Amino acid sequence: MAEVPHIITAVQFTPVNMEPIFFRARELRALDQDPKSRKEHAGRFLGKRAVNLFYAESTRTRTSFELAEVAWGIGYSSTANARQFSSAAKGETLAHTIEIVNQYNPDLIVLRYDRVGGAAEAASLVDVPIINAGDGSGEHPTQAFLDAFTIQEQLGRLDKLQITFMGDLRFGRTVRSLAHVLSKGKNNHFDFVSTEDLRLSEDIKELLDAVPGITYTEHFHASALTSILPRTDIFYVTRTQTNLGAPKLQENKFRVTSEVANLLPSHAILLHPMPIDREDPLNSEIALEVDRHPRSRYYRQAGNGLYIRMALIEKILEGEPILAEVA
Amino acid sequence: MAEVPHIITAVQFTPVNMEPIFFRARELRALDQDPKSRKEHAGRFLGKRAVNLFYAESTRTRTSFELAEVAWGIGYSSTANARQFSSAAKGETLAHTIEIVNQYNPDLIVLRYDRVGGAAEAASLVDVPIINAGDGSGEHPTQAFLDAFTIQEQLGRLDKLQITFMGDLRFGRTVRSLAHVLSKGKNNHFDFVSTEDLRLSEDIKELLDAVPGITYTEHFHASALTSILPRTDIFYVTRTQTNLGAPKLQENKFRVTSEVANLLPSHAILLHPMPIDREDPLNSEIALEVDRHPRSRYYRQAGNGLYIRMALIEKILEGEPILAEVA
Amino acid sequence: MAEVPHIITAVQFTPVNMEPIFFRARELRALDQDPKSRKEHAGRFLGKRAVNLFYAESTRTRTSFELAEVAWGIGYSSTANARQFSSAAKGETLAHTIEIVNQYNPDLIVLRYDRVGGAAEAASLVDVPIINAGDGSGEHPTQAFLDAFTIQEQLGRLDKLQITFMGDLRFGRTVRSLAHVLSKGKNNHFDFVSTEDLRLSEDIKELLDAVPGITYTEHFHASALTSILPRTDIFYVTRTQTNLGAPKLQENKFRVTSEVANLLPSHAILLHPMPIDREDPLNSEIALEVDRHPRSRYYRQAGNGLYIRMALIEKILEGEPILAEVA
Repeated sequence: MAEVPHIITAVQFTPVNMEPIFFRARELRALDQDPKSRKEHAGRFLGKRAVNLFYAESTRTRTSFELAEVAWGIGYSSTANARQFSSAAKGETLAHTIEIVNQYNPDLIVLRYDRVGGAAEAASLVDVPIINAGDGSGEHPTQAFLDAFTIQEQLGRLDKLQITFMGDLRFGRTVRSLAHVLSKGKNNHFDFVSTEDLRLSEDIKELLDAVPGITYTEHFHASALTSILPRTDIFYVTRTQTNLGAPKLQENKFRVTSEVANLLPSHAILLHPMPIDREDPLNSEIALEVDRHPRSRYYRQAGNGLYIRMALIEKILEGEPILAEVA
Repeated sequence: MAEVPHIITAVQFTPVNMEPIFFRARELRALDQDPKSRKEHAGRFLGKRAVNLFYAESTRTRTSFELAEVAWGIGYSSTANARQFSSAAKGETLAHTIEIVNQYNPDLIVLRYDRVGGAAEAASLVDVPIINAGDGSGEHPTQAFLDAFTIQEQLGRLDKLQITFMGDLRFGRTVRSLAHVLSKGKNNHFDFVSTEDLRLSEDIKELLDAVPGITYTEHFHASALTSILPRTDIFYVTRTQTNLGAPKLQENKFRVTSEVANLLPSHAILLHPMPIDREDPLNSEIALEVDRHPRSRYYRQAGNGLYIRMALIEKILEGEPILAEVA
Repeated sequence: MAEVPHIITAVQFTPVNMEPIFFRARELRALDQDPKSRKEHAGRFLGKRAVNLFYAESTRTRTSFELAEVAWGIGYSSTANARQFSSAAKGETLAHTIEIVNQYNPDLIVLRYDRVGGAAEAASLVDVPIINAGDGSGEHPTQAFLDAFTIQEQLGRLDKLQITFMGDLRFGRTVRSLAHVLSKGKNNHFDFVSTEDLRLSEDIKELLDAVPGITYTEHFHASALTSILPRTDIFYVTRTQTNLGAPKLQENKFRVTSEVANLLPSHAILLHPMPIDREDPLNSEIALEVDRHPRSRYYRQAGNGLYIRMALIEKILEGEPILAEVA
């Protein structure tokens, strides 16, 4: 039997197999400005059906998947908060739910699960393509894909980069997924800036240790930014995932203000997987003023999510798996 | 004025008027494997609009209705949890909500209500076809329809059957609805197995007492299964509807393990309306291992829900009521 | 750059610029009875995408927007309760969310926000048309539009009217929006009936004071109805917005029974923006019996919401702003 085109982990992605999808996403973004193309696209996958099953709500991710689906003419049924309201609250297991949804013969299941390994478990059970839309503190591979797309488009390459990650490096699944992808670019160097509590987990360090040419340094004081940022190509900041069990950063030091962003060279870009925590503006990991800073690319980055997801869904519905070559 | 094709109660169904819908559901299930047919179906009811109004969330039921609607090209608007979040929380009555939704000129209202009689009340108010998707501990007629379909398909008949119901027989609306349907098959015998607390309610007993040729026996000890199951054709297990006010079964005796399922003859089938409670696996009414038992048909049964609902919606949108002949 | 066709406030509307939309809504309501027209409409805006972002749930308003969208063939993604479940709960600001949604290139954002000024803020940030679907105790302009449509259709004019508002005049955004619109009809007179606590806010009084030919009177005892209602053309009753911070009306005096409705002249109409609070029927602002009273038009009024919204969305997607002429 042919391989089912699941998207479970960023381990599947390489600079080589991402390239045609980057190309297509760029094309789809351009065509999306043209009403005639949009009308054509809206009839492209008529008759296909998707189930978007979110155990934890994520307005942004769900919205971008739903819009990608309607942009292709795919009919969808969504559950926004299965953990709290659905049969999950009646003790129904993930396996059980997935087996039933599978019986409804969908062409695609987009799954946001609240525990590590949810998408992999689902993919082991059914032949319907599963897209992992986040599994607890595990992975969020389509986010890594759109991050890589944004980097490639803005800097022209995925190798020979100096990437600085700052924020929650322990629980943040986007860091995990993106580090996987960028470990495949030759001669990338990583700087990881966080409190000791939120330092990079061992599994990622082992991964990076195993790749020749990849180097990294950990820093536990924000003061290190003064020396790191001037040689940084990508400054990737994440929020502290308090909803995933992480302690809040206690001090304001790990915070991007205009002054901090000014340390970056003019070709560098500032990314963030969103949402930025702005409830307490004085404690936000990125100050409001930085939204309009010339280095900021996080809104553009978020928007790329729609087109990367459209391109990935197209590939999946054409039955083409996206898998790293076995070395 | 023509009869409005509501589906309110399993009392409407007979082996005779169900047969063409069984036939169509089987056909739709086969055609659903063919991309060309799916594309055609997705344009079939273009311009029709459905409102799915769920006062209590039910991911499975809502998802299967939404997928049936998009499979036919029907546009839908859904409310997943009206009791908690909508205007219902502001004191809006069902009658009020239904009268307003009616003004939006939909072609179909799918209603899950949290109290007995909700769908009947709605149907008394408006000329839009209502499908009862469950009304508290009342009925769930499309569930009974797909149960009957699964039985007919697996055993080739709806009469001369020995049916064993086990679990919550008092509050479980699927038992109520299915008993209605099967009471119309000639010479069916029912065995009802439950605690005394959760015994069959009087109204169902009176119904069965009134039908010549129908017999039934109640059993209040799980030990009865040893003698009942070897002569059972259909073993229909339900969960204890704790969310509908039922006490939990206190002991593990009323529980299907492989050993229990092995008591069934080889032609028999094990059904469950889902979801199976698996939160505490040791206390689940059906042990995990039974999912792969040769007698299990509950996943297949759940999947039939999509095609039965597609077939019923087609009938309704063509304006054809599904009603038992008056005797 | 052309004006973006937002709908933010009833201040945009005048009897003159509403007229063609009234005409179109009437036409759409008639065509909606014809399956062929509905099918045509369902293909009209294929490829367009809407995002319905509700920070507070409103089943009725959201449902009517979603149905208007599917009636036009627009694909939508909805969030029903962003305040409680989405990233808003993670400290994401409205500005932030709107900027991200904007990146997904939608053709329309329908925004229900829980604080005054939400829609205006959103419109100041992006070039995507925003429809204000209610902003806390601020405005609800499409409600005012459909109210005006119902009045125009039932009474044949928007001027020389005696309008009696009763209920929550302080927090009720529909009163605010509708008073704006009707202040533009020549020689309208308003009677405002409420408790002193819930009296008309100063900004509306100042607005009315500034318009030549408009007069109004405030009344703080329900007994005034005996003299007011016999000369009333439109009796507009609202619920007490307890969810917006208003105190409940303490006594039953401000309540419409058949006896009260009988005080109206035969050409008068009784309106209510819905939902009517019926949780405690003895304390409902409109008694159940009044639903069938010959003066009642509130169900009709609610139904007009679908067609007014369809007509407004059509105008917006054709890029035509709806703006009051500058005097």
